Amino acid sequence: MSKTIDIIKYRFYNDYSELAHPDVLAALAALGTTQFDGYGLDEFSDRARDAIRAKIELPEADVHFISGGTHTNLILIAAALRPFEAVISSNMGHINTHETGAIEATGHKVCTAAHTDGKIDVPGIAAQVNYHTDEHMVKPRLVYISQSTELGTVYNKAELQAISDYCRANDLFLYADGARLGAALNSPACDMSYNEFAQLVDAFYIGGTKNGALFGEALVITNDQLKPFFRFHLKQRAALLAKGAALGVQFEALLAGTLYDDLALHANRLGLKLAAGITALGYELLTPPETNQVFPIFPVELANRLHSMYGFHDWENHGDKTSIRLVASWATPEAMVDLFLADLAELS
Amino acid sequence: MSKTIDIIKYRFYNDYSELAHPDVLAALAALGTTQFDGYGLDEFSDRARDAIRAKIELPEADVHFISGGTHTNLILIAAALRPFEAVISSNMGHINTHETGAIEATGHKVCTAAHTDGKIDVPGIAAQVNYHTDEHMVKPRLVYISQSTELGTVYNKAELQAISDYCRANDLFLYADGARLGAALNSPACDMSYNEFAQLVDAFYIGGTKNGALFGEALVITNDQLKPFFRFHLKQRAALLAKGAALGVQFEALLAGTLYDDLALHANRLGLKLAAGITALGYELLTPPETNQVFPIFPVELANRLHSMYGFHDWENHGDKTSIRLVASWATPEAMVDLFLADLAELS
Amino acid sequence: MSKTIDIIKYRFYNDYSELAHPDVLAALAALGTTQFDGYGLDEFSDRARDAIRAKIELPEADVHFISGGTHTNLILIAAALRPFEAVISSNMGHINTHETGAIEATGHKVCTAAHTDGKIDVPGIAAQVNYHTDEHMVKPRLVYISQSTELGTVYNKAELQAISDYCRANDLFLYADGARLGAALNSPACDMSYNEFAQLVDAFYIGGTKNGALFGEALVITNDQLKPFFRFHLKQRAALLAKGAALGVQFEALLAGTLYDDLALHANRLGLKLAAGITALGYELLTPPETNQVFPIFPVELANRLHSMYGFHDWENHGDKTSIRLVASWATPEAMVDLFLADLAELS
Amino acid sequence: MSKTIDIIKYRFYNDYSELAHPDVLAALAALGTTQFDGYGLDEFSDRARDAIRAKIELPEADVHFISGGTHTNLILIAAALRPFEAVISSNMGHINTHETGAIEATGHKVCTAAHTDGKIDVPGIAAQVNYHTDEHMVKPRLVYISQSTELGTVYNKAELQAISDYCRANDLFLYADGARLGAALNSPACDMSYNEFAQLVDAFYIGGTKNGALFGEALVITNDQLKPFFRFHLKQRAALLAKGAALGVQFEALLAGTLYDDLALHANRLGLKLAAGITALGYELLTPPETNQVFPIFPVELANRLHSMYGFHDWENHGDKTSIRLVASWATPEAMVDLFLADLAELS
Repeated sequence: MSKTIDIIKYRFYNDYSELAHPDVLAALAALGTTQFDGYGLDEFSDRARDAIRAKIELPEADVHFISGGTHTNLILIAAALRPFEAVISSNMGHINTHETGAIEATGHKVCTAAHTDGKIDVPGIAAQVNYHTDEHMVKPRLVYISQSTELGTVYNKAELQAISDYCRANDLFLYADGARLGAALNSPACDMSYNEFAQLVDAFYIGGTKNGALFGEALVITNDQLKPFFRFHLKQRAALLAKGAALGVQFEALLAGTLYDDLALHANRLGLKLAAGITALGYELLTPPETNQVFPIFPVELANRLHSMYGFHDWENHGDKTSIRLVASWATPEAMVDLFLADLAELS
Repeated sequence: MSKTIDIIKYRFYNDYSELAHPDVLAALAALGTTQFDGYGLDEFSDRARDAIRAKIELPEADVHFISGGTHTNLILIAAALRPFEAVISSNMGHINTHETGAIEATGHKVCTAAHTDGKIDVPGIAAQVNYHTDEHMVKPRLVYISQSTELGTVYNKAELQAISDYCRANDLFLYADGARLGAALNSPACDMSYNEFAQLVDAFYIGGTKNGALFGEALVITNDQLKPFFRFHLKQRAALLAKGAALGVQFEALLAGTLYDDLALHANRLGLKLAAGITALGYELLTPPETNQVFPIFPVELANRLHSMYGFHDWENHGDKTSIRLVASWATPEAMVDLFLADLAELS
Repeated sequence: MSKTIDIIKYRFYNDYSELAHPDVLAALAALGTTQFDGYGLDEFSDRARDAIRAKIELPEADVHFISGGTHTNLILIAAALRPFEAVISSNMGHINTHETGAIEATGHKVCTAAHTDGKIDVPGIAAQVNYHTDEHMVKPRLVYISQSTELGTVYNKAELQAISDYCRANDLFLYADGARLGAALNSPACDMSYNEFAQLVDAFYIGGTKNGALFGEALVITNDQLKPFFRFHLKQRAALLAKGAALGVQFEALLAGTLYDDLALHANRLGLKLAAGITALGYELLTPPETNQVFPIFPVELANRLHSMYGFHDWENHGDKTSIRLVASWATPEAMVDLFLADLAELS
Repeated sequence: MSKTIDIIKYRFYNDYSELAHPDVLAALAALGTTQFDGYGLDEFSDRARDAIRAKIELPEADVHFISGGTHTNLILIAAALRPFEAVISSNMGHINTHETGAIEATGHKVCTAAHTDGKIDVPGIAAQVNYHTDEHMVKPRLVYISQSTELGTVYNKAELQAISDYCRANDLFLYADGARLGAALNSPACDMSYNEFAQLVDAFYIGGTKNGALFGEALVITNDQLKPFFRFHLKQRAALLAKGAALGVQFEALLAGTLYDDLALHANRLGLKLAAGITALGYELLTPPETNQVFPIFPVELANRLHSMYGFHDWENHGDKTSIRLVASWATPEAMVDLFLADLAELS
């Protein structure tokens, strides 16, 4: 990974390039030398848990705060599965491609299903389930989806309902990686409330890191089977932060008023503005623009010229074209989006 | 773990009950919306790594920032060992007692050696090495010590030199858990510089969480054998924080000037003041007072009365007496130490 | 491990130095080129399973054949435990000392309890259970005992009943390593039938390797909680032998008539004859002689002279004396026991 | 898996449906009550190791005997890899499909490459290597191939040389699953000697179970990097059979004279006779017939009628046709092959 070059006007690499929303930092600073209980048993974490339960309208849900997304994924999945059980994921799923085998390091196979625009569906899941017939093969037991997906798309209610129904009929847990859950549920392509979403899955997390927190994710467990002894799993996998209050305070700040959704809406709005501006210039996108991640397909030469002006990752090679990933964040200034589109127009 | 009761005058539970030193929070706030590279590849982390290499006077050392101590322990140990290799630890060692089997969860046995005041020595280590004779037994390969120990004591230079010599002669890695390294190296009982300490071990960490950071530890690897591919281990074990800059910024602030050592000296001074006051009242201590952790032995009834006034953990039952643990932190006000001693005198 | 020296008159190293009882080999040879189903689904294994269920008088028990004892131990234990759960074992337990960390390699800690003559008891087990109080520590969930023990002793009915009662009252599985179960249940010190034994534990194995089989152990699961999906565990841990019939045929032969118990009785009788002869010469034993393993304490010089005449393992150093281990097997000729005792008398 | 139905004329399910070649059983019986050292340190295993080193003409190779193929695969692979390293396998590879996640249970991801007729090649391997670019992804370190493959085909010398060259240039271990190595190296499609084969890989096993042994595989390690401490891995993974002599004796018998290759030649000859007869009747095969496994494609109705007469597994659905797997073994009578072909002709 290359270092920032000063000449770059703005970086659209991802949504975790800026530290934290001022309200989050202010809430931390406000604590002063107040003493608190360790390991997430403090009153701030309690209040943040209550705020999450209120937001999803599920008062019986369990909530645990964990430093990062890979950590959250591996703990929930390893806790849910017996040794011979496996996960079904999109072959693009973060756990399958970008977590250095963290799931396998806990002993479990990731079985991959083909995706459309980053989303898997019932036929793909069922194909995996049906392929694994006996004790010579792993037993798929948990379906992993990302909401929004690694390609910026979102599952709508009908899509998620179908997956949820299949999972419940087939004794599969359904777990959603919500690193960008704010972007997903605030997308114009999404027709679900937090409550509706939460009811369709067995566990998910509300991403903080990519939506204004300094760090931290809120794992929500709605299925009673997955709740018992969970703090043992957290501690064994090194996720019980001594100063757990640092996570609780942040989520309390993020969930105050409408801040969490406002930040996601801002990121989405700028992502979709990028998409609209790019397609208006005649370029195609790899996937439908639905959230703060946009994947335009540019001629390689154009992409290279843009690389000298803006920070972003190349995505996939398509012969003499390349897709790139542009990500708008809660902190992206609209002026930078306008500047990018103006520069693109000039280069086109 | 019980919740805070309002009536408590002050809490001596541990050294992570207060959030963070103001300089740390100010440094974080100063970042504003500056964009940075992810996963610890930012300039702040680079500068913090340089500051650590300068402090230990070992320019070739590798430095990685990790969220917490259990996380740091399990990653270093799992990275150092082949599947059949084991750790030697004090039976009081944090990895053996209070990490929910995190080391075993990576596949490795912890072999325990007896301790004196929390410290192990060459005969104890050698007994374990000599006991394991062939392929029907695990092969001890790494010695784990805590500096300072779980009982507040420190290894002095001669003690550590002897262990280090034995380890190097017997192909054992020596790793020090430095959750309270500041307290240790700033103890009047310690006669080692950071450089001298760092040269005697193969890896160690400089604890941030227990010495003024919001969260975070700095793992230092001095043995070249342990350096390669370490970021793969970090990512697989979920320790590559997306906003790694949040760790770098904190360590840069802690290592500016003499802050890190000042905070440890403050905690030590108050711990030793507690110890002196308690022994002046005729009570014994479980272990020699050397750092910010003190273990007085009180009649059970006295301990119970103190519980209604101060927060602290009981340690060990001794018939009609009990040892308790009092911990002073970087944030403990001297007035609270004075108040505790006055109350104790009154109750005595 | 040293190679056999020709001059040795006889080897009392262990009870697996001879290949297999002739009936076992004959049963294998009788199969000719009969075709059978793989992986233990053959009719011979079915009949052997029925024979075991009949012998223990528990028609609902599940039975699985596995190549060896370490393999059986790790599979049952790893299948029974969730990631944060631990085993309680004697510190002399085979899983704790002589399986190269096989249990830890499946992710689980072994917590050790002190033993008397190789046996643990309720106070020792309860001490471990009570020590582990919260999510910062592993949670003991399974008690491992060996029947007979690594020191040749046996749990009698009252002892096992007490442990069983404690385990059931405290949600602990009780698992017995029966590598030498024949020796145990046919010991004069034992007052339990196979049925009584089987009812007091949740799982155990009937050892074949050390009682006349070419190889193989029969794992018996009596607790319904531990039965589901067990063949998945077997396959994942590489214990589903392609020609599982080779195991079934052997156990069918061993369980025909009274052969299995006859072999154990023979080994016990010779072990106890050794013990009686040795004590008659004025020597002490490390533990009460109850089965085919005997642990005399000899002057070091005497032990060394015996080493030049017989094969056996030294056990423990006791200053100028040493304990040794003598093991009689199903195949040991009585003449060799007589010869050993005569030689010992001459040397004494 | 269904039980044998009596009406079946012969079973072509696999090459492990018959117990063992008479020479193997005779060699075991010949041992009588000879005493031997445990855990593979006996003289029979020593002689068998020497016989293997002589056969492959590599006197420095290490040889270990292990009960079965899945066991051998997981031990070698887990021993070769550091935690973050991964295997590259055909998506049809036995470790990827039929070992219940045994590799993942040791912590390692299996990355899959597409195959042609069961064989992978350098472009497929390179695609996996090149895809994994940094510490956010596993690092492929070992290539797993099967010789012969799960589809009955064999790598010829040029194909294996190319893979071997690529692996050595890219710091990848090359390991061959030789469950059917006899069939492979005695195939008319193969132009390699045992020595040439052994020199091109870093480790492989010579399958006993599927070529006349009662049970057992001989793992051969030719790369010095993989040799140290291997018996620790064997013991930890429960593969050090107490009566290791039982494995040594069998391999000594199989390697006496030309027996091992004779058995493979017999199985291949009958497999190829089946293939020739089937194609002569106008049916296609799924893959080129090269060894003892043949995959004819039959109309579904024909396959169903054959099912009532012979034992075999269905392989893959192809609309109104189905491929089936027919396996000839060292013990298959030629008359049964003739009978099958006659019945097929009649049904056609």
